[in-house]
Amino acid sequence: MDKLSVIKVGGKIVEDEETLQQFLVDFSTIEGSKILVHGGGSLATKVATQLGIESRMIDGRRITDEETLKVVTMVYAGWVNKRIIARLQALGINALGLTGADLNLIRSVKRPVQPIDYGFVGDIEDVDASMLAKLLLQHLVPVMSPLTHDMKGNLLNTNADTIAAEVAVALTGFFEVTLIYCFEKNGVLRNEKDEESVIPLIDRKMFMQYKEQGVIQGGMIPKVENAFRAIDAGANKIVITKASDIHGNKGTVIQNCL
Amino acid sequence: MDKLSVIKVGGKIVEDEETLQQFLVDFSTIEGSKILVHGGGSLATKVATQLGIESRMIDGRRITDEETLKVVTMVYAGWVNKRIIARLQALGINALGLTGADLNLIRSVKRPVQPIDYGFVGDIEDVDASMLAKLLLQHLVPVMSPLTHDMKGNLLNTNADTIAAEVAVALTGFFEVTLIYCFEKNGVLRNEKDEESVIPLIDRKMFMQYKEQGVIQGGMIPKVENAFRAIDAGANKIVITKASDIHGNKGTVIQNCL
Repeated sequence: MDKLSVIKVGGKIVEDEETLQQFLVDFSTIEGSKILVHGGGSLATKVATQLGIESRMIDGRRITDEETLKVVTMVYAGWVNKRIIARLQALGINALGLTGADLNLIRSVKRPVQPIDYGFVGDIEDVDASMLAKLLLQHLVPVMSPLTHDMKGNLLNTNADTIAAEVAVALTGFFEVTLIYCFEKNGVLRNEKDEESVIPLIDRKMFMQYKEQGVIQGGMIPKVENAFRAIDAGANKIVITKASDIHGNKGTVIQNCL
Repeated sequence: MDKLSVIKVGGKIVEDEETLQQFLVDFSTIEGSKILVHGGGSLATKVATQLGIESRMIDGRRITDEETLKVVTMVYAGWVNKRIIARLQALGINALGLTGADLNLIRSVKRPVQPIDYGFVGDIEDVDASMLAKLLLQHLVPVMSPLTHDMKGNLLNTNADTIAAEVAVALTGFFEVTLIYCFEKNGVLRNEKDEESVIPLIDRKMFMQYKEQGVIQGGMIPKVENAFRAIDAGANKIVITKASDIHGNKGTVIQNCL
């Protein structure tokens, strides 16, 4: 099977002009089929603040009311996505910006309002892997912003880490998939203040222990859970690493069992 | 040759929830290949105002400084485009939202700063008609927002009427093309205050006369000029009409000579 790299890049990398440009140059050097999934959370918070809309978060997840949905759609699918597309084109990459609504790629269902009402947030039900595979076989590079739709005409805000994992999972039938979560840190750290304390390998048992000990906490928990979900479904390799390590040679490898 | 409808819809139709929905229902009934090109100017002005950015226009054309480029990218490619995509998907149309940067579809060059510096505004150099034709042959429906790129990494604001005309022109080699400009009025009017005063047919000679007499003025002049450009290049039929007349049976037909 051909190789596919699914790269997720975090909001903090996207936010800074120079870091983004260096990341995109690195991304353009990846050989074979590739998909980029981007966040944009911190930029959305900035624009929301400028518009006088309060950003409410619970456990690092955004509460998406109607006005916030408008903001994240503008920032993720508009400013962040299209700026990435223009820059990738300049780097010779034939990029195509997509949400889950485009081509009906990712259908989701609005999250139940109990126990917490997250608002217009979608939980993924279906990824159209054949359509994505068709684009990849035409040597196109999908760049996905973290929005999905419910097939009833509504856009829904969806976690970018989850989109990356579900896209990786859906494409395991077509490609040998590597999933790389790129962000501002060196990997999953033993000590959040020490960038040298990268945990090189995490399996399920270690993950349980690290969680209990509070070593892995906050937004890192769903990220690692997404990684295990992708591993279970047949993804070949999963790495959580610094944005500059786009080939996943450093950082933290997630593996089912040692 | 197969038939293709290129439909341009104006900002005022896109702005109102109900009018937009009715328009999209009508659009979904068009048989054969179709492309939607949308504006969004009045919504962009609103968001710019909310963000404290002054909207400057000369002859109905927006001056696009750096902050304004960010706003129009957010509003056109984000909010307006993706809301249309989600709604068309709910209507069973496999829509794909695009800017000219996506798939390198429309390459433009930044307009010279003399005599007027319009800022980040692009004049179209090239439309990739084969790529658009390839999408259409896969029964996909491109929905284009009025942004292009310069292949140097920059997005450029580009008039939606012009995009519609250039896309129509580029595809005359592949399809029998009808171009319909949909907006809030019944067509080109003899008397702007009388919706019954539609001019049913305009050829070049009449256009010159109407311009001299001041019957056709302001933003309607470039619209009609775009229409003639498309006719000259081989478009089959061009109509300027009300959004509810999506099949172009009423309104004003633009024709080279009577």
